[in-house]
Order: sequence, then structure tokens, then C-alpha cells
Amino acid sequence: MENLNKATIQRLLLYYHYISDHLAHTDGVSVSSAEIARLIDVDDTQVRKDLSALGLKGCPRVGFKMAEVKQTIRIRLGFNDCHKAIVVGAGKLGGAIGSYKEFFDYGLNVIALFDNDPNKIGLMIGDHVVQPVDKVETFIRDHDVQMGILAVPADTAQDVARKVIQAGLKALWVFSSTHIEVPENIAVRHEHLLGGLAEMLYSMKMQTIKQSV
Amino acid sequence: MENLNKATIQRLLLYYHYISDHLAHTDGVSVSSAEIARLIDVDDTQVRKDLSALGLKGCPRVGFKMAEVKQTIRIRLGFNDCHKAIVVGAGKLGGAIGSYKEFFDYGLNVIALFDNDPNKIGLMIGDHVVQPVDKVETFIRDHDVQMGILAVPADTAQDVARKVIQAGLKALWVFSSTHIEVPENIAVRHEHLLGGLAEMLYSMKMQTIKQSV
Repeated sequence: MENLNKATIQRLLLYYHYISDHLAHTDGVSVSSAEIARLIDVDDTQVRKDLSALGLKGCPRVGFKMAEVKQTIRIRLGFNDCHKAIVVGAGKLGGAIGSYKEFFDYGLNVIALFDNDPNKIGLMIGDHVVQPVDKVETFIRDHDVQMGILAVPADTAQDVARKVIQAGLKALWVFSSTHIEVPENIAVRHEHLLGGLAEMLYSMKMQTIKQSV
Repeated sequence: MENLNKATIQRLLLYYHYISDHLAHTDGVSVSSAEIARLIDVDDTQVRKDLSALGLKGCPRVGFKMAEVKQTIRIRLGFNDCHKAIVVGAGKLGGAIGSYKEFFDYGLNVIALFDNDPNKIGLMIGDHVVQPVDKVETFIRDHDVQMGILAVPADTAQDVARKVIQAGLKALWVFSSTHIEVPENIAVRHEHLLGGLAEMLYSMKMQTIKQSV
């Protein structure tokens, strides 16, 4: 099966969300590529190409079975798999990400949170007690954890990343405000919230200047 | 003054973070463009060009004054401004974003949270009591709020966006898993956490397949 590129993954996710919302609000069982295309502002041909690449064939004048499209996207993107994950850094952001139930529906199963702050260790966050970070490597090995969510301060993030990868993690989802280097065989994704904020505030500032000229 | 593009904003932010960390750990007052370049994996010439575009001149063999670089970046990116912001959708994610103290240092001042869930209204999140969402428009007008953080369910996000923009918001930071259309004069930034998660899980899946072949 062909590999999906990032843009295709994002489109499939949009189709998936659109159908999930649509399914919840209509009695219909089918959806046409034109309907999907219109609502998410993508070309109709692109939608049909993407769905056809997943092996989905629509019926003329009826469209695609919504439940089938949804399940096929779930399987192809791996949402039906169950990935054991841990959070390192149980501050506000780490705690929120770690106890955000919606991620579970996408195959992410957070089974533990870790921190180095004695005031946080022992606290309940969501369904889990915060554990001391010096136990994280043993935990990863004992529980065969695959994924790590990093929400530690920027200046310790690379060091934590090195440790958890050495202990066996295959993927890192990084919320620390820094760039983490990982070996080639490790999946990594940075969510630079401060970068997003900076871009938005700057673009708001430019708008204000433009309007006052 | 020239407008900054997104890539430049992200580089300035990296310099800023690097210097903030560096300042905290050394006794030095100066930093060379080569040092910055080496640590964040950007070309030395690029660093000098970016800093020179901000009007900063380094001294030969000494480098740039760290405090001056930091302040100049803060002013240019607008971190020293104070933007009044509200959060709509006081679930786990909205609550975490709304009470995340680090954003304040970047000019974002969250002054209220709103939700439509009677079980959430009245709760304390961070320093604020969650207010009913039907008061959001009056609040925006009364307090001259400029920015909104949306963390409502995907299927209501566009509707909420329309209302808050009509009430006067100039910028939206969207954490709902959907794409929001806004008028041209409104700044918008989407943080598609589920999109990031999907990309990362897929890339981990592909790595596993590659290694097992």
C-alpha cells in the first residue's frame, strides 16, 4: 500500500471529522464526494482520488457509505490501534494533554504521568497518580510503552528525550518550546504553541497598524 | 519597518528562547551569532542578517548584548504589549490553555473563560470563574477584548467564531478540531492537535512496518 504524505493525512482527517459530525446530525447513510468537497473547501476530484486510493468506491448518484469511509480512514491512519503513551512533565499543559479523553478515540492511551517536582508527585491527574521522573525509564521497559508526550521545560527537554528514547520509546510528541533532535527511526512531532501565539499576535499587530494608516 | 514573514518570526523566537535559557545559566552578557547558529542549527549568516534587520549591531569578537537582543525581539514581536483575551470552551484543553501562566510573558492576558455546560459554569479555573457563554458578546464589548481562544467542540466552532468576531474580537486562536473561516481583517491561527497526533501515529506505524520487513 502506498505511503500517505502529510497533506493527505490532514485531508483524510478533515473527511473523517466532517463525516463524524454529519453522521451525528442526519438520518442519511451516504455522502457524496461533492458534499464533502463543498464543506471543507477541497476540490471534488481530490476527494474522489483520496477515497479511491483507500479502496473506497462510491455508488453513482448515491455516494459513499459514511460508516465505511469512517472505518476505512480509522484503520488506514491507525486510530484503531492502541498506543501506550506516557506524559513527562505534569504541569498544566502536560496534565491537560494527558487527561484529554478525545485522544483515546484516536488510538492514544496515556497510562502514566511523570514529573520531577515533589509537589506534583503523588497528585491525581485524570485517572493517574503523578510518578517521580527517575522511574520513567524502568516504567517504559516494564510496560512496553511506545509513545511519549513531552511537556517539560525547554532546557531539559533534549535530555529527557534522550533518556526515554534509550528506554525504548518509538515516538515523541513535543509540547516543550524547543527543537528536539531524535534518531532517524523515531517519529517526532513538535507542537510549538508559543510559536503559534507569536505568529498570531504579530499578525494582529500588523492588521492594527494597516487599519490605522 | 519591514514586515516579518512566518519563518523569520519562528527564528526570532528560537533566538529568544536560546538567549533566555543561556542568560539563566551563564555569567556572560554577550553572545555571538555563531553560538546562536550552532545551538539552533541555523546558518550563521542568517542569524546576523535577522538581528541586523532588527537594527542590532554586534561588536567584533564580542558579539551581541544578550539583554538587548532579547528586549528588541520582545518589542518587535509585540510580547511587551498586553492583549486581553478570553477562552470559549472551558474543558480540559481550554482550561489548561486559559490558565497557562507562560503565555502571559508573551503578551497574552486571559481575563475570562466561558462555557455552555451548567456543570462547568461557576467553577474556578486558574484565577477565573467560568461564565455562561451567552454573556460572551456583552463581555467582549464591555472589556474591549481583542483575542479569543476557541476550545469548543468542532461542530459549534464556526458559529461561536462568527459571534465573537461580530462582538469585536480581532484574533482567534483555534484549538477546536475544525477549520474556521474568518474575514480578511481577522488574525486566525489553528492548532490542530489531532492532526499532529494523526501524523505522528502514522509515521510511527510506517517506521514499524519498515523495520519488520
